[in-house]
Amino acid sequence: MAAKAQQSCSIARTLEVVGERWTFLILRESLAGTTRFAEFSRTLGIASDVLTDRLHTLTEAGVLDKRPYQEPGSRVRFSYHLTTSGEELRVILGALQQWGDQHLPLPSGPTAVRRARDDDRALHVAFVDDSGKAVPTELVTFTRTAAYPKD
Amino acid sequence: MAAKAQQSCSIARTLEVVGERWTFLILRESLAGTTRFAEFSRTLGIASDVLTDRLHTLTEAGVLDKRPYQEPGSRVRFSYHLTTSGEELRVILGALQQWGDQHLPLPSGPTAVRRARDDDRALHVAFVDDSGKAVPTELVTFTRTAAYPKD
Repeated sequence: MAAKAQQSCSIARTLEVVGERWTFLILRESLAGTTRFAEFSRTLGIASDVLTDRLHTLTEAGVLDKRPYQEPGSRVRFSYHLTTSGEELRVILGALQQWGDQHLPLPSGPTAVRRARDDDRALHVAFVDDSGKAVPTELVTFTRTAAYPKD
Repeated sequence: MAAKAQQSCSIARTLEVVGERWTFLILRESLAGTTRFAEFSRTLGIASDVLTDRLHTLTEAGVLDKRPYQEPGSRVRFSYHLTTSGEELRVILGALQQWGDQHLPLPSGPTAVRRARDDDRALHVAFVDDSGKAVPTELVTFTRTAAYPKD
């Protein structure tokens, strides 16, 4: 694939940031509140060098904000906090989660649900129009704009 | 990662099918109407062995339906058609596309838009409740169900 700055397709541009192995699972943990290297490492069972690399990519892309912290008697360490653009990845992860539970279910049923914080009502991911009303997926089409670079 | 059948997390289960390098771009072409091996190959510039592998994964997972066809004077070839579960991946690709155009824009602006086939109105991907009304992403939380396997 071409370098990041030259990707005409916005799907490809997003994948340059989040498309590497493990990254979606790191983001899943971030969205669940994990911030510290050791926590990501323990929960995911991921090799340290891979975790370091993925956190670096996400920080460089402005998805995570890297902050120093220091506990008494310890060296300075870093924690990783979702930025606003990182929080907006929740819709992508919600869509991945929903599809997995619908089309690759466990015998025990769906393993995750999406809920509203205020009143706990069930949510799903869908296409909506500018009035905030859902539109069936089979009615949706993707179109290139005039800004899409010519070959 | 554990084998497909043992993945507790529905995000991880989806990634077992669509999380490999190139797969989202193959699906982007499928959603745009591409069905033939040579078309995927030409549009994406992807190595044949990788394309063969990814199409196999997607066919095995029931995302693509593999069908034989034969043109006069040629050998039998195969085409790959999205199933219903494959069509439902559109919401994931729409979310990837939207995030890329919003957070990694080209200087020329968004390169793709999502539109309704019937009246061409602009669409975006969002969380909605069961009444079909959009809910702001910052109000959304993911919760494990009782079906999520215990460690």
